[in-house]
Amino acid sequence: MTILINGKKNTQTSALDRGLLYGQSVFETIAISEGRACLLGLHINRLRRGCGVLGIPMDTRILLDEIESIISNQDKAVLRVTLSMGVGGRGYLNPRSPQSTRILSLHDYPNHPSSNWLEGITLGVAEIRLPHQPALAGLKHGNRLEQVIARSQWQPGWHEALLLDQQGSVIEATQSNVFMVNDGQLITPSLDFAGVAGVAREYLMSQAHKFGLSVKIMPLSTNLIEAADEVFLSNSVIGLWPVKKLNTRLYTDHEISHKLLKLMIKNEVIPHYKT
Amino acid sequence: MTILINGKKNTQTSALDRGLLYGQSVFETIAISEGRACLLGLHINRLRRGCGVLGIPMDTRILLDEIESIISNQDKAVLRVTLSMGVGGRGYLNPRSPQSTRILSLHDYPNHPSSNWLEGITLGVAEIRLPHQPALAGLKHGNRLEQVIARSQWQPGWHEALLLDQQGSVIEATQSNVFMVNDGQLITPSLDFAGVAGVAREYLMSQAHKFGLSVKIMPLSTNLIEAADEVFLSNSVIGLWPVKKLNTRLYTDHEISHKLLKLMIKNEVIPHYKT
Repeated sequence: MTILINGKKNTQTSALDRGLLYGQSVFETIAISEGRACLLGLHINRLRRGCGVLGIPMDTRILLDEIESIISNQDKAVLRVTLSMGVGGRGYLNPRSPQSTRILSLHDYPNHPSSNWLEGITLGVAEIRLPHQPALAGLKHGNRLEQVIARSQWQPGWHEALLLDQQGSVIEATQSNVFMVNDGQLITPSLDFAGVAGVAREYLMSQAHKFGLSVKIMPLSTNLIEAADEVFLSNSVIGLWPVKKLNTRLYTDHEISHKLLKLMIKNEVIPHYKT
Repeated sequence: MTILINGKKNTQTSALDRGLLYGQSVFETIAISEGRACLLGLHINRLRRGCGVLGIPMDTRILLDEIESIISNQDKAVLRVTLSMGVGGRGYLNPRSPQSTRILSLHDYPNHPSSNWLEGITLGVAEIRLPHQPALAGLKHGNRLEQVIARSQWQPGWHEALLLDQQGSVIEATQSNVFMVNDGQLITPSLDFAGVAGVAREYLMSQAHKFGLSVKIMPLSTNLIEAADEVFLSNSVIGLWPVKKLNTRLYTDHEISHKLLKLMIKNEVIPHYKT
């Protein structure tokens, strides 16, 4: 595996990095296809928003150069980009002149069966609930214990699990966003209080009109999702997986899901799922 | 500064440690006084609880040996002990056979003026609110963005800042727990939904009866705290600071606070604040 830390091949970083001490970091998981970083502009925008909220300095030009260098000649891979606050003193006080740490690591593209895209996946519901934190909602920051715990709660046969908030509203899934399709509407929950605003979610919302779909953001319960015509999950590595099963509900209609998936592949915003 | 990583002098750790990737770690900040780790049993207990929840393996005997070795000959210092989940693959899934990382770093004891203990400190109220997360409440885990943001919101003249939950109840302060004294009662908020259950808080609650104080856990508003006879903050590095000012309220009575502080010093659970 290749890792670049502040532009140099390395595997180690400071034990006093505030990314490690407090999770003071933001990160992106970027699909690499034929030497290109997919949806790079959206990833960079989200990094910039997160760095602004967390006070992490970000030099976009240097970062883009490093991304270009690490992904060249990569046919199909996943790049994780982490920007952390870097080394500071003990205690929560930010350093006066922070020097952020850039960590780029290149990973194999995950080996999911093509049936996940074609026939859909089985969705469960995680036991842990997401808290409301409007100051951090939407960002992909380094405080991800809820997702780690949710992942450990997946049951055999599940490919993903919904995450609800403390009030029982559906927010997202462990590592993807959730959409339902009903009567020509593409519906997804608000991420103003919890959840990660995925770049694939953002892309799909911007493209929905091409299929005559209007986009609606509204609170979703598991009951509403069970009653939907179609349900799918999105993230920037897989693109989009239709859901074939949630609890006892079986979904057989994936028409819109597959139209959107084909668009993503045609527009090269994700690698093709066929190896 | 001395840093031990898994028992060896080192300053670097893996860039793929899940402590850095997701904040999957727990930590303790331990006062060192005359070669002893103060309140060590309570710190170890909290580490053990946190490791249990986060799935981090913990070998107490090895950890205690390493603590003993790093603090020997230290007259007055602060030791941070971090236990992280160690290196795993990309993604939230825990490694099958996790190898935790132990990071021990020794820091100078902070240089606070003795007036903080004797005359008390000025307390503000942070703007950011704490979310409710019963699955993690009480633990000192590595997801500490709220505290980092709260610390950045301290205004000039503040020595600490209260943290409220989304409903406006007082939970704790940025890096300490909060107590009020009223009519022979020592009152502190519940930490079942948010906050860090400090070891100094635990110690003080166990000692209160020595001064005829009963201990009560109940929801506290800033109004209630302003109306209290005495208010103080606790953590394991400073022990206890009386509060002399919150908003427009000035507190002149620190009798109980100073009795408890003297007990902590007498029982050697904190270093003496005089240098």
